[in-house]
Amino acid sequence: MEKANLIYPSGQVTLREVGLRDGLQMVKDFPSTAGKKAWVEAEYGAGIRHFEVGSFLPKNRYPAFGDIESIITHVAHLPGAHTAALSPNVRGSQLAMVSGVGEVHCVISATEEHNQANLQRSRQQTLDEISEVFALRRQSDLKPLIGVGIAMSFGCSISGKVDPDNVLDLANRLFEMGADIVSVADTVGFAGPKQVAKLSARMRVLAGDKPFGVHLHDTRGMGMANAAAALDEGVRILDASMGGLGGCPFAPNATGNIVMEDLVFLCQCSGFETGVDMEKLIGVRNILASEMPQEILYGALAKAGLPEVAIQPAGVVH
Amino acid sequence: MEKANLIYPSGQVTLREVGLRDGLQMVKDFPSTAGKKAWVEAEYGAGIRHFEVGSFLPKNRYPAFGDIESIITHVAHLPGAHTAALSPNVRGSQLAMVSGVGEVHCVISATEEHNQANLQRSRQQTLDEISEVFALRRQSDLKPLIGVGIAMSFGCSISGKVDPDNVLDLANRLFEMGADIVSVADTVGFAGPKQVAKLSARMRVLAGDKPFGVHLHDTRGMGMANAAAALDEGVRILDASMGGLGGCPFAPNATGNIVMEDLVFLCQCSGFETGVDMEKLIGVRNILASEMPQEILYGALAKAGLPEVAIQPAGVVH
Repeated sequence: MEKANLIYPSGQVTLREVGLRDGLQMVKDFPSTAGKKAWVEAEYGAGIRHFEVGSFLPKNRYPAFGDIESIITHVAHLPGAHTAALSPNVRGSQLAMVSGVGEVHCVISATEEHNQANLQRSRQQTLDEISEVFALRRQSDLKPLIGVGIAMSFGCSISGKVDPDNVLDLANRLFEMGADIVSVADTVGFAGPKQVAKLSARMRVLAGDKPFGVHLHDTRGMGMANAAAALDEGVRILDASMGGLGGCPFAPNATGNIVMEDLVFLCQCSGFETGVDMEKLIGVRNILASEMPQEILYGALAKAGLPEVAIQPAGVVH
Repeated sequence: MEKANLIYPSGQVTLREVGLRDGLQMVKDFPSTAGKKAWVEAEYGAGIRHFEVGSFLPKNRYPAFGDIESIITHVAHLPGAHTAALSPNVRGSQLAMVSGVGEVHCVISATEEHNQANLQRSRQQTLDEISEVFALRRQSDLKPLIGVGIAMSFGCSISGKVDPDNVLDLANRLFEMGADIVSVADTVGFAGPKQVAKLSARMRVLAGDKPFGVHLHDTRGMGMANAAAALDEGVRILDASMGGLGGCPFAPNATGNIVMEDLVFLCQCSGFETGVDMEKLIGVRNILASEMPQEILYGALAKAGLPEVAIQPAGVVH
């Protein structure tokens, strides 16, 4: 069996905590190294096993990720935990290859315009760089997985509508290049459940036995509906962040990543075994609140608690 | 054609604003009569046509609904607008019959325990009272529609799990008694999309040509996923409130009704024509914010805006 299929078993749902990467790109103040470790340990203790722990971006410009090697090493000691880190370029991938990270996460955009704006190069240049990442892996001792996320797969904040055929062509090329996992991202929360269902179904056919994922944002409130649609179409790898940490780079005060706690509840009430202890998971929010007091923590389940017999209110309800 | 089928055409989605009833049961301060009128007018201007405008509860104990007759009269002047009002008992229904309201909304619980706690009588007593409401209508000049909501249809905050067979038996009895519309309510937000899909599909078969609806709360974050599941199973009547006004009587600070703005976006991106102008709809929030400054207004779409070409952020996104 391929290593990727061991890390992402096809018979179960894999929920990836991306708050330490996607979430921290948007926060006003970021957690201390000890705080990050406490966060991951607590969420691991609640049952989550996949953590995207940061980006190999220049440390002087992105201090939130300055301790990434230390976090990777720490998480690697937790039995069964899998780490991923975003690498935006060859330099980052060189660092990632020796960091002990379980998965190097590369990014390309579904549209030329967004790729240029986000990565300051053409999509072909990004594909060439991803080829170099595969070459780096061949030379490496640790041979991490290489995953690729296709940003703006459901609509682009620069060029508008995105043809799903183009997304699938790109996903196909990435799998052919050797990507262990390809995920399609609704980077700015443009999608509705019908769109997610359609692209997920086509990705499932394209990917065959290979792992594929969907990365959703709740920017326009469709996060859980989109996640439900993805699950219905066979998607088994979903990204989320504790408290929906992340926001949206295009809309101040907008919600960001889908909320891990609510996603776990969705999976549980849809009949998927997650192995997550919800009470413990909700408790992780305390660490985030303490480390990032300026950030709003989203999520309905944490406020309401699990369904259970409760006290009676006054008045007439319906 | 039955009057109910004119008010609730089967070929289109009907979104019912329940904030002026369900929403106001939970607020700290309620809007002035002028504020309520401004709210309804603005939401009507955005394209919404169905408004549950209050409850015929004792005015001395429930001052939020003290002006209900005035609101009903005001909304009745808006061409094509349909009003509904909750009536918890025969006395309320007597007042409703002469109020000019378009629909008297009765409530019964899926469980004996909740009916007793909510209405201080048995379900059989409530059914007997609903029979009296039909008798009152036969004697009335205005002959409003009579709708019934089945509270706790997806799980009960007192007695736990609810057998869907019992809900369907109750819905069947209500239709046989002459109910123009029956809706099943996830009063405390216990349901997930699979459960909503199953009950919706069975309600669709049971209801046949008669209108039926689903009343959802977002208490545990499943609101939009549940609404999407209901739409997929043929539900065409959904309740919501502007800004998710309402809360949950069982969980302080928890979210309440599903958010109208997000629901409209879900319908639009699922291919349903709503006739709603989203920019105008979002503008209605200003009236709520001004009239109820202590209330949190929920909703992701209003914060993010509709999908459109936007400015570029700094950093690398995925």
